[in-house]
Amino acid sequence: MSNSNHNSGQRNMLIAQSGGPSAAVNASLAGAVAAGMASEKIGHVLGAVHGMQGLLDRRIVNISEQIESGQDIERLVHTPSMALGSSRYKIKKEVEEKEFGKITEILKEYDVGYFFYNGGNDSMDTVARLSDYFRGIGEDIRAIGIPKTVDNDLEYTDHTPGFGSAARYIATSVAEVYLDVTVYPVPTVAIIEIMGRNAGWLTAASALARESTPAPHLIYLPEVVFDMDSFLGDVEEAMGKHPSIVIAISEGIHYKNGLYVADTGAPPDAFGHKTLGGAAVECEHYIKRATDIPNLKTRVIVPNALQRVGGHVASSTDLEESYQCGCKAVEAAERGETGVMITIERLSDDPYVSRFASHGLTDIANKEKKVPASWINELGNDVTDEMVTYLKPLVRGEAVEQTKGGLPVFYELDRTMLVSPEDVSPAG
Amino acid sequence: MSNSNHNSGQRNMLIAQSGGPSAAVNASLAGAVAAGMASEKIGHVLGAVHGMQGLLDRRIVNISEQIESGQDIERLVHTPSMALGSSRYKIKKEVEEKEFGKITEILKEYDVGYFFYNGGNDSMDTVARLSDYFRGIGEDIRAIGIPKTVDNDLEYTDHTPGFGSAARYIATSVAEVYLDVTVYPVPTVAIIEIMGRNAGWLTAASALARESTPAPHLIYLPEVVFDMDSFLGDVEEAMGKHPSIVIAISEGIHYKNGLYVADTGAPPDAFGHKTLGGAAVECEHYIKRATDIPNLKTRVIVPNALQRVGGHVASSTDLEESYQCGCKAVEAAERGETGVMITIERLSDDPYVSRFASHGLTDIANKEKKVPASWINELGNDVTDEMVTYLKPLVRGEAVEQTKGGLPVFYELDRTMLVSPEDVSPAG
Repeated sequence: MSNSNHNSGQRNMLIAQSGGPSAAVNASLAGAVAAGMASEKIGHVLGAVHGMQGLLDRRIVNISEQIESGQDIERLVHTPSMALGSSRYKIKKEVEEKEFGKITEILKEYDVGYFFYNGGNDSMDTVARLSDYFRGIGEDIRAIGIPKTVDNDLEYTDHTPGFGSAARYIATSVAEVYLDVTVYPVPTVAIIEIMGRNAGWLTAASALARESTPAPHLIYLPEVVFDMDSFLGDVEEAMGKHPSIVIAISEGIHYKNGLYVADTGAPPDAFGHKTLGGAAVECEHYIKRATDIPNLKTRVIVPNALQRVGGHVASSTDLEESYQCGCKAVEAAERGETGVMITIERLSDDPYVSRFASHGLTDIANKEKKVPASWINELGNDVTDEMVTYLKPLVRGEAVEQTKGGLPVFYELDRTMLVSPEDVSPAG
Repeated sequence: MSNSNHNSGQRNMLIAQSGGPSAAVNASLAGAVAAGMASEKIGHVLGAVHGMQGLLDRRIVNISEQIESGQDIERLVHTPSMALGSSRYKIKKEVEEKEFGKITEILKEYDVGYFFYNGGNDSMDTVARLSDYFRGIGEDIRAIGIPKTVDNDLEYTDHTPGFGSAARYIATSVAEVYLDVTVYPVPTVAIIEIMGRNAGWLTAASALARESTPAPHLIYLPEVVFDMDSFLGDVEEAMGKHPSIVIAISEGIHYKNGLYVADTGAPPDAFGHKTLGGAAVECEHYIKRATDIPNLKTRVIVPNALQRVGGHVASSTDLEESYQCGCKAVEAAERGETGVMITIERLSDDPYVSRFASHGLTDIANKEKKVPASWINELGNDVTDEMVTYLKPLVRGEAVEQTKGGLPVFYELDRTMLVSPEDVSPAG
């Protein structure tokens, strides 16, 4: 049956989402779907539910049949998290041959000639290996990576889709928290714990709150070895200058010996669970124990998942670029590219101009782009102006969320409406 | 010098903010300031920095001199938290006579004929007693309360300024968290801990997330005695029906014996601080310990201060009504009212129509309006449709925050620019 598709010159495309959610993954999905539906080379636009795991289980939906209008595409752009669902499933080297074989078989059954994987470092590794496998067996299935991570830690791209919106959430929240903690005439230290275990980009984005307020007063990234006594010294110095301060710390700050600050090493309690950790709580405890500041009040804020799916405060720069990354991935595959990831190149900061390109996945896979040392101040408790210049354009623009009665309107893809290979052949 | 003011028929007004911050306290301030500046009866519009404590310390600023344009007023409306600062200072009965005497003296020095206090239950008690005191000594200083609390627990008003915006933040965040926790094919229980120690209104507002998603699946208010085993039963039943669930709990849920769930009773650790409590963490621990659900993942989210100062997701209904409460307070004082609080009366749900009135403070002071039992379901783990009907209009409308480059623009009142009585007399 897939022959009929070949005869018409069309083959199907399939896209999957992987890793952690962001406010912009669905914008990339929307871009890829819109480009796929508009393409003469592409038949059905399919999606694998729950990433690679879903693909292996043949959990495949027909997105082009579910999307009924341009309004649906627009709603999908503004719906945070991942409409197709995700998975953390990683194909192990030892079963790679077998699982890649199975994936090839399934993609051939569904007449898929274009495969798109939207994820972070791990996912780029998977699609790099898969693309090599297709080439190795002489199968013309083009495999393209679409970047995605609020951590902003992918190499060879100026930044990653999803980062700008999370950065806007963090900057806005830090500014609002500053207004909150400074209302009382009581010395207060507020500590905000921000995502990014190994790369401090999102924690650095807290610096943008200074466009609205004096906060944050101190910033600690995982790229700098953390020392609790230096930290206390920094806090006391800052509290000597300001009635109250806000501190941004990465969840991944760690000591010289490599141990995470969050790992208290405390024995499990009577119920068998470990004491609730968290880097911010640990810093708070230390301040309380060691400071001489009288009547000091402390407050810990952990935005947790809220920072990565804050669609209501998404950056329109981010959503537009994320959408374009999806489109460009389809265009690259149409041109015959495979084994590449779409990248964003910055041409200028102000006015902000960027363009899209692609880069070989093998270079990108499994690498983590960290904050360069030159963008961190000498004391290791702040970022430099270069970082702020870099960050500013990425949070720009208020993405106008679709709301009804003040509440968000989400696009919901039906993940249960699975299709068979027959459904998506030209005869189907 | 104040005589000259009297001759012109004008007297000054003074306003102070008290209690905890919200996204709408400054909207009430803006309304009162705009009405005061427009009034022929009112001279300068003064503010006490850090509430009653600041007033007693003569920390008084001239707001009408700092406000330069309608744009400043507009910015103040959209700036969360409290521009004048706040305090938790409560005037004790035993020093009331002395402190009220001092307040009267200061207000007379500054030629204040109109006094406005913007706060919650405690603050309404203070202004009730103060108004009685003024009447008792035959002093013509009119004292009016302006309601304010995200807890929505004031009596004789349909709802309180600040509540609608916090409710919109909670509903939006719960909806976003639902999209986050349902991306993986892993059974997940997410627990969101919401403010409101004794009244469950804000926790109930999580029900509005159902306009966008199936979440929350369970809601626990402090008005219902909490039982951990019933809770576990509820969780297991819900997990039997849904792959993952979101639970909204009030920070104030407590057991039959009156103990807060958050109070683990655990002894202090080696550093002398108590184990981090939190009702949600405690519920999470219990689920982990007692459930039979295999591979269950849990996630705790505590929005903390973010929920009360989320100006970027404020409700325009809330900001408009809060502004009007400020205006109406000034109008009431001009008419000669004293010892009252401005109230909001609901005339209809849909279309939503409200009007403003005033009610004697003595009735309101120190009372807490709780969620009525008839608005909670029989099992005590959800709210009824009546609650949803009540909540819906309050979160309506996207208040368009002023932003620059995607980041909030706040109005900042200079709290350090103190004025003396001479500065605000007509000769000053």
